[in-house]
Amino acid sequence: MAQSIFLSSTPKPQFPITGNEEFVTCFAPKQRPDYFRLLSKSRGGARAAAYTSDSAAVEIPRRWYNLIADLPIKPPPPLHPKTFEPIKPEDLSPLFPDELIKQEATTERFIDIPQDVIDVYRLWRPTPLIRAKRLEKLLDTPARIYYKYEGGSPAGSHKPNTAVPQAWYNAQQGVKNVVTETGAGQWGSSLAFASSLFGLNCEVWQVRASYDQKPYRKLMMQTWGAKVHPSPSNITEAGRRILENDPTSPGSLGIAISEAVEVAALNPDTKYCLGSVLNHVLLHQTIIGEECIKQMEALGETPDLIIGCTGGGSNFAGLAFPFIREKLNGKMNPVFRAVEPTACPSLTKGVYAYDYGDTAGMTPLMKMHTLGHDFIPDPIHAGGLRYHGMAPLISHVYELGFMEAISIPQIECFEGAIKFARTEGLIPAPEPTHAIAATIREAIRCREAGESKVILMAMCGHGHFDLPAYEKYLQGALIDLSFSEERIRASLANIPQRSS
Amino acid sequence: MAQSIFLSSTPKPQFPITGNEEFVTCFAPKQRPDYFRLLSKSRGGARAAAYTSDSAAVEIPRRWYNLIADLPIKPPPPLHPKTFEPIKPEDLSPLFPDELIKQEATTERFIDIPQDVIDVYRLWRPTPLIRAKRLEKLLDTPARIYYKYEGGSPAGSHKPNTAVPQAWYNAQQGVKNVVTETGAGQWGSSLAFASSLFGLNCEVWQVRASYDQKPYRKLMMQTWGAKVHPSPSNITEAGRRILENDPTSPGSLGIAISEAVEVAALNPDTKYCLGSVLNHVLLHQTIIGEECIKQMEALGETPDLIIGCTGGGSNFAGLAFPFIREKLNGKMNPVFRAVEPTACPSLTKGVYAYDYGDTAGMTPLMKMHTLGHDFIPDPIHAGGLRYHGMAPLISHVYELGFMEAISIPQIECFEGAIKFARTEGLIPAPEPTHAIAATIREAIRCREAGESKVILMAMCGHGHFDLPAYEKYLQGALIDLSFSEERIRASLANIPQRSS
Repeated sequence: MAQSIFLSSTPKPQFPITGNEEFVTCFAPKQRPDYFRLLSKSRGGARAAAYTSDSAAVEIPRRWYNLIADLPIKPPPPLHPKTFEPIKPEDLSPLFPDELIKQEATTERFIDIPQDVIDVYRLWRPTPLIRAKRLEKLLDTPARIYYKYEGGSPAGSHKPNTAVPQAWYNAQQGVKNVVTETGAGQWGSSLAFASSLFGLNCEVWQVRASYDQKPYRKLMMQTWGAKVHPSPSNITEAGRRILENDPTSPGSLGIAISEAVEVAALNPDTKYCLGSVLNHVLLHQTIIGEECIKQMEALGETPDLIIGCTGGGSNFAGLAFPFIREKLNGKMNPVFRAVEPTACPSLTKGVYAYDYGDTAGMTPLMKMHTLGHDFIPDPIHAGGLRYHGMAPLISHVYELGFMEAISIPQIECFEGAIKFARTEGLIPAPEPTHAIAATIREAIRCREAGESKVILMAMCGHGHFDLPAYEKYLQGALIDLSFSEERIRASLANIPQRSS
Repeated sequence: MAQSIFLSSTPKPQFPITGNEEFVTCFAPKQRPDYFRLLSKSRGGARAAAYTSDSAAVEIPRRWYNLIADLPIKPPPPLHPKTFEPIKPEDLSPLFPDELIKQEATTERFIDIPQDVIDVYRLWRPTPLIRAKRLEKLLDTPARIYYKYEGGSPAGSHKPNTAVPQAWYNAQQGVKNVVTETGAGQWGSSLAFASSLFGLNCEVWQVRASYDQKPYRKLMMQTWGAKVHPSPSNITEAGRRILENDPTSPGSLGIAISEAVEVAALNPDTKYCLGSVLNHVLLHQTIIGEECIKQMEALGETPDLIIGCTGGGSNFAGLAFPFIREKLNGKMNPVFRAVEPTACPSLTKGVYAYDYGDTAGMTPLMKMHTLGHDFIPDPIHAGGLRYHGMAPLISHVYELGFMEAISIPQIECFEGAIKFARTEGLIPAPEPTHAIAATIREAIRCREAGESKVILMAMCGHGHFDLPAYEKYLQGALIDLSFSEERIRASLANIPQRSS
């Protein structure tokens, strides 16, 4: 018989039992119903259980919001890469289904969300809006920090908010196959997930480096039935051309986009899906902000500062755009702050110019903040933020002066992420660590200034598949990659020039 | 310039645009409030947005439910392993804080949930109750299938429902360190998460095989600040004894428990936490069922069959016990079905006897369905179900005839999991694939019999860290491990005999 716990037990019979405390809800109950239910009526000694409604239980919004409808100046149109004339809807037909092309160009204020899409959203929506009380305590700040958490979706981020409607509109139009690219894997898995629900075949070109380093993301896509190719692949002309020059190319997001776009353009039964940048993608993500407005109202709070990370921009736009409308309507006056990695600072160091969305130059020209379409960012862990450009609509809003932007290096981001994980309990993806680091900066500023600002932060995904990055940070092996002004000058020189 | 999409574009200008459909909620709105809010009043052309409350938005329950209060016969007590007398509360003091010992033995019907615990539960609770419409369609069944999804928690399963209160009660009593074991890693990461929130140091003994094969789980625990040891370790006498005999031992859950219990027993400032089996663990998990009762009511549904997988039993009990109360009260009449792996069938092939909770025999004796405390199950992927025993309270309920049990081999489980992932969109952990497979069996039976049963299933966690198991299945490399009657006879022979 092995050692028993009873061998070393010392009597400790006192029970300082706490009584049945009365629990009260901690939030103002505006708009919230109370439920009183008798759980167990028939038994002797049973008590009436008073269940009081918790925090901000709101319903899923029924419409996406289109910021363009409310902008004083409309954004510049995308241009045909040959004629430099604004592109026509039919130019995009090889790539997208009609309804998405219409959404790309619409000036309607609200777009109804199809019921089938709502039914899928129910898997993870409404997403929680959480007060970061334990982080506030750690930072000893008078600021009230809230975060809107999108990581509860099946693919683990905000990306399914647009993957589901994109797959659905394609399926409605009778499309059989959808293709896309993926870097870190968040977008590819989101589209694989959405495609599986509506009977679409899905093929994903995953950046080679990520394909090799993140096998779980690939397995996730395969579990949902998608085909996954490492990019560059020899399936496409774009891929073959790269491989001829460099058979061991690690790939890039721009190359993977070129491959997927090529396949869609050449196959009539195949359409292309994009996970960020475009107007219709940002539109779908506004469900985050619409939901959040209602939740903040239910809590009786108004944000003073809204913070989100930006890569292509869909996460930031998703939370911010509905609040920009509220600000334009004079209902509140928050500051909007985009946070990008110092290694890929399109808003803070790029130029505002017409450029291609992909490396090979196959897409329309979009006016946006860009580091140049052949700029290859250093391999920071926030793969989702390694994009040379910024969503044209965000770029336009930035030019209008409606928002500000900063950049933060990755070590500071992971420092913040560890603080967040160990107080709030959620392990963030590397992308939202940028928003967390910016929030912590502001919360400390509030402490020093004695300001009790309300900070609202976009916590757009979990880091379950990014844990090796945390390991590196914890081992002290993470480095800050410096941004090269020379490299950006070189890539900016390749931005296409209009003849006029 | 590379090939442009515009080279192959054909004009396709028609837009078969669907109109603004009227969306109605699909569930009966019993008990649900309607919200009508004007989102954008001041602008010309803006419409009133009618937001109708979605599905079953309920509040977090405020009390856990103790089934013992309502049982016609009380369960047999745990026994002191030396005297074979019922253990006294003080016997457990070296391992657990007083409040948890009290909960272990209480006959009170409801236990109030501390406000601090509720605040953390808000991170992922209320968890969604989802109608599996797309799976129903695939199976062409008249059954209505609902699943309660617990995978949205930070650690990815139902385990944090008990990890949080366990950590909190320990912190309240001034405990500095908690220790535990983990097999698949779900429980270890849950306790690491919970400990980080309340400032406790956490050490986890992770079964060596899992430590090596699931590095992400280990990294997750480390990110939350826990120390992780592979088990067997040379830190404990129990571990050293195993390593002396077999320096390359892959470990087992029973060995890891022995190590953690030893450390707690020998260090006054250190307590032990367990992730299943014990009464107080099952108690904490009843929040699942309490919440689900309210959600089913809000949907106007009553379950005919409730299905959950069983390893130690806490997931099954968490969903089922509150519904058993409802059945005892005559409010409904569901069948309760536990599903275990054929490789570790404690309920369906074990004996009902007093046995140890760990391999080394350090714990009290508990009357339970057991395969023998030194039974080592085959290495199926559902690591969380590889436990030789069953929760004593579930064993007792089973003996009372309140529930049934079946076992299913793992290939059928993964077949079901793929069907589920590709229709419902969530990738299940290997453990709940057993509930899914049993649900599919029943749904097909309903199709054949033309019965429109309401099936409620416990979907207790996601499979993000189990994707290599899916890869094996998709490659056809998964095997069904046959259960050896001889091996169980051998291990049953080692169950301790009372002298009387």
